[in-house]
Amino acid sequence: MDRRSFLKNSTIGGAATVGAATLAAPAYAQGNRTLTMVTTWGRGLAGVHDSAQRVADSITAMSDGQLTVDLKAAGELVGAFEVFDAVTSGQADMYHGADYYFVGQHPAYAYFTAVPFGMTAQELANWYYHAGGMELHDELGSIFGLKSFLGGNTGAQAGGWFRNAVNTPEDFQGLKFRMPGLGGQALGKMGASVQNLPGSEVYQALASGAIDGTEWIGPWADEKAGFQEITKTYYTAGFHEPGAGLSVATNRDVFEELSPAHQKMIEIASAECHQWNLAQFMANNGSALQRLQSGGVQLAEFSDGIWDAMGTASMAVTEENMGDELFAKIHNSAMESMRASSNWINRSEGAYRAQRDRVMG
Amino acid sequence: MDRRSFLKNSTIGGAATVGAATLAAPAYAQGNRTLTMVTTWGRGLAGVHDSAQRVADSITAMSDGQLTVDLKAAGELVGAFEVFDAVTSGQADMYHGADYYFVGQHPAYAYFTAVPFGMTAQELANWYYHAGGMELHDELGSIFGLKSFLGGNTGAQAGGWFRNAVNTPEDFQGLKFRMPGLGGQALGKMGASVQNLPGSEVYQALASGAIDGTEWIGPWADEKAGFQEITKTYYTAGFHEPGAGLSVATNRDVFEELSPAHQKMIEIASAECHQWNLAQFMANNGSALQRLQSGGVQLAEFSDGIWDAMGTASMAVTEENMGDELFAKIHNSAMESMRASSNWINRSEGAYRAQRDRVMG
Repeated sequence: MDRRSFLKNSTIGGAATVGAATLAAPAYAQGNRTLTMVTTWGRGLAGVHDSAQRVADSITAMSDGQLTVDLKAAGELVGAFEVFDAVTSGQADMYHGADYYFVGQHPAYAYFTAVPFGMTAQELANWYYHAGGMELHDELGSIFGLKSFLGGNTGAQAGGWFRNAVNTPEDFQGLKFRMPGLGGQALGKMGASVQNLPGSEVYQALASGAIDGTEWIGPWADEKAGFQEITKTYYTAGFHEPGAGLSVATNRDVFEELSPAHQKMIEIASAECHQWNLAQFMANNGSALQRLQSGGVQLAEFSDGIWDAMGTASMAVTEENMGDELFAKIHNSAMESMRASSNWINRSEGAYRAQRDRVMG
Repeated sequence: MDRRSFLKNSTIGGAATVGAATLAAPAYAQGNRTLTMVTTWGRGLAGVHDSAQRVADSITAMSDGQLTVDLKAAGELVGAFEVFDAVTSGQADMYHGADYYFVGQHPAYAYFTAVPFGMTAQELANWYYHAGGMELHDELGSIFGLKSFLGGNTGAQAGGWFRNAVNTPEDFQGLKFRMPGLGGQALGKMGASVQNLPGSEVYQALASGAIDGTEWIGPWADEKAGFQEITKTYYTAGFHEPGAGLSVATNRDVFEELSPAHQKMIEIASAECHQWNLAQFMANNGSALQRLQSGGVQLAEFSDGIWDAMGTASMAVTEENMGDELFAKIHNSAMESMRASSNWINRSEGAYRAQRDRVMG
């Protein structure tokens, strides 16, 4: 695939950009401006909608209302998967969403959410803020007329909910499973029939039998979504999203019209929410997991054979994309950073946690 | 100990507070204001000075100069350990520092940096932002006339540098060691002669033989400080600071005079820096550790017997303080949050990391 093949999937054009500037000018001239933020999340979806709302509220509060961010949840202005085109075209000013929904626009978008066997949330932050990740996100966004920042994180996601337990790689043959991004492509290589549904449509698909299983996020968000009402088999660790970042992307022309102070507010509010949101999921997952277990949910782990097959499939998906220069550049940068930081984390925090468990029980 | 015994250690008074307001008024009336930030860090100390500077710069940039934060490193206006009194008295407007330096003012300050066998950086964030930690920090700060936020984190700190290896708990008898906070008090119970030196004085103390060993932060900051020039024995995991938070504390009268928008900037800029700084340490520690090893540094781990003795001593230090109502409240809140979140982290990210290491090598 070359870069042009991604570009034609998206609405990019001078006319659309001019339209955005024209719409915005009257409000801005009065010193106050409303920025419309669309999201990939149904209103109220636990954690993910919350993080979009926090970014919006922080910008509005810090700017003393000079920038008012008006959040439109999925379906209120455009559909969940239409936010990318809405912002590149100028229909909306910014989106909050998971960038791996847009691997059709460019496969490297996966690295700013999560890739199979990739970075944990901490490793993503290390790379993004101090080892070139943010600059690469900007390079990718500039192709599409976006100014992008990380603005949320779910932490390591659960393997997901299965109507029937899976014991060997062969059990994925023909399995109808919801999983976006490169992880979904890897499951496809294992023979699964993979569907990419927005969060607000997953419950109904699982309840109706349209899919045999789904990953969503983790105990807290999954419990709120209600998957435990449909099946009791829950795989707690997954290969596909070890630390899923969420993004705030602003139309680049809109961003460049803002004052440096307002630009900095968008940057800092987004980064602050990356941490706030991760801590939100981590603070809530423990007690949610206990409630799920009390309600009869059985916790499961994939067999080593399944993990091995997931590894082989994931490497195949990566290889298919390495012919694209920017994909390869982003992949190599991310993996180099991951390897560089993981050894110290094992030797310090890893060793500490093992001793804390041993000494304190 | 009751609360009053802490209060008398610090300069709190109406006269000092009025002084601060009087000094500040002229600049504020013109719409712009300079906030003087003192720190516990020598200018340029890797990571810790950087995080103070980032908070200062973010506030200055987001306020478009309406608030200019003027950073005075340790010794430039007051000494490292004098920043608490400088801000409570109104001599300075805010400080950036490690709150466990102020366990003499109140022992519960330790929980907003780190306590032995306590929370990792992620667990601290979970507690602080979503399980009551921030509100307790505010309750503690209000006693002293401070408005405090977390504003940096070093991650899990190394066990430290020793002139001679330690093999059993008895080797700590009479050992002259630099370690602040409750960790230092625990080492004292193991028979060590503990010293609490600011960062900029540690190298000289170790080089001169005034101390037999020291912890500072981790490979990157320790390498910059130059301890590898003095001894080659480096314990990588430690019991004392599994995820050390740094704080931004503003004189409460000064904070309350600010507009809600400016207050929000201080809050969001501080929180953003908690993540940015942690990622900075994690992104740099791996390569620094490799360089230290290449330069002949020997990596060591404490024996289980030493870890056990550290555990016993740490529990004794906690017990000594549990008679203070606020200390007990903060301790119980922190430990409850830590226990609630750690199980999920083990089952998801922990299991994932083990499989990634196994499958990908």
